[in-house]
Amino acid sequence: MENPYEFDQTEFRVRYGETDQMGVVYHGNYAQYFEVGRTEWLRKFGVTYKQMENDGIMLPVISININFKSPARYDDLVKVKTQLSEKPTAKISFNYELFNEKNDLLATGSTILVFMDKEKNRPIRCPEDLLKKLTQ
Amino acid sequence: MENPYEFDQTEFRVRYGETDQMGVVYHGNYAQYFEVGRTEWLRKFGVTYKQMENDGIMLPVISININFKSPARYDDLVKVKTQLSEKPTAKISFNYELFNEKNDLLATGSTILVFMDKEKNRPIRCPEDLLKKLTQ
Amino acid sequence: MENPYEFDQTEFRVRYGETDQMGVVYHGNYAQYFEVGRTEWLRKFGVTYKQMENDGIMLPVISININFKSPARYDDLVKVKTQLSEKPTAKISFNYELFNEKNDLLATGSTILVFMDKEKNRPIRCPEDLLKKLTQ
Amino acid sequence: MENPYEFDQTEFRVRYGETDQMGVVYHGNYAQYFEVGRTEWLRKFGVTYKQMENDGIMLPVISININFKSPARYDDLVKVKTQLSEKPTAKISFNYELFNEKNDLLATGSTILVFMDKEKNRPIRCPEDLLKKLTQ
Repeated sequence: MENPYEFDQTEFRVRYGETDQMGVVYHGNYAQYFEVGRTEWLRKFGVTYKQMENDGIMLPVISININFKSPARYDDLVKVKTQLSEKPTAKISFNYELFNEKNDLLATGSTILVFMDKEKNRPIRCPEDLLKKLTQ
Repeated sequence: MENPYEFDQTEFRVRYGETDQMGVVYHGNYAQYFEVGRTEWLRKFGVTYKQMENDGIMLPVISININFKSPARYDDLVKVKTQLSEKPTAKISFNYELFNEKNDLLATGSTILVFMDKEKNRPIRCPEDLLKKLTQ
Repeated sequence: MENPYEFDQTEFRVRYGETDQMGVVYHGNYAQYFEVGRTEWLRKFGVTYKQMENDGIMLPVISININFKSPARYDDLVKVKTQLSEKPTAKISFNYELFNEKNDLLATGSTILVFMDKEKNRPIRCPEDLLKKLTQ
Repeated sequence: MENPYEFDQTEFRVRYGETDQMGVVYHGNYAQYFEVGRTEWLRKFGVTYKQMENDGIMLPVISININFKSPARYDDLVKVKTQLSEKPTAKISFNYELFNEKNDLLATGSTILVFMDKEKNRPIRCPEDLLKKLTQ
């Protein structure tokens, strides 16, 4: 199995609608890029966030931090590297690095999400089976 | 009471994040502008879409049509004029006109939405009490 | 070469941030999906919209029309089929069809874009070399 | 004149398209809410970001930090309180607090932006006249 603490990578193209009149990607859109990163990171472990929600677990973001290094531009093929930053508890924390095709570092950042019981609408610990998949 | 078939008006400012690298509002964002228009139009009749959803009625958009006449720009104070285009049945149809502060016509368009029973997930007719409020 | 009047296909995953509280993709986001479709359609002909802009040609959308058939959902792998609807003149028109993995038709639609000289900010005819590439 | 280091307040309504399928505002959209806050904060000092750009100064965001406390919901009337965190140099830093109508704290956060000469595409110090307006 892959090591969840190593950066894992996914790619996508910057859309026109994601740029702003500065001619670069609007900074607020990086939150979605991070989301794509951790979604694909999860999928590698045989877990989809979609299935988690269907199983009654939500993962709202409680904190996000982004440092912008170099602008992402329209049509760039952006690589998001996603890394679990520590063993999940009631929270799950990720680090991200974004690069363009020339391997320029575009941004670094981190998010903290919490496991929530969807029905009871309250925090829970990371489910055991998920923990096993993610950290085996 | 106001005439629902006359254009009613609401205003807001264009956000930076709504522009694209052409230096104007990204065309896809006009769908949100129309949404703001009909939300505020409804509110004038003492109806909030929020309350409708809480009461178990959803209003998904089944058709949208936009004609772009002149670009909306960052920080423009945009006026959306919203008009009911005909008496609601199982559908409710709106026409829109967008203007900037100089009264340039930015766009025209229309949307058709359907009344849906949220629980049963199927189409219903426009509720009587809503029909009364909207067309009295 | 491919026939530009036949539907050509590209794929991507629905992002969480593209959904709304109805539990489906917000209708306004389909404009970006169409954009992805025509961008990748162009790329097949050795043309990138990015390069066109660098060469001084802009392609603003002057009209969009979308009919929503069945909701796109989070994590769906959406296929956009894009088709040139007629020979480009001063305008270029596309038709779109969106499908999910089960091949449900999600939406159909069309856009009209105009060729603009970026510097002079006025409409031009479709450049000859582009016309050749697209219609040979 | 107002004290730039005290929180100044602006208001707007949450749009349907800003929610996600968790039934709350998508976390990435708070970046736009902060943007609205600082734009209106600037306007109080007789400065518009639009005019600054026309005068050749850009203000890209180089860092954003958001802590989510309580979810913003559709149709909430959100108050953004914006505060200059220190005297601008080559950077300008803001703190934000978001509240709903019931005065629940929704989020706190901060951004750092840099003054850029648009033409030369390089960092500059905060222009003297702006500094005067903001800190008198």
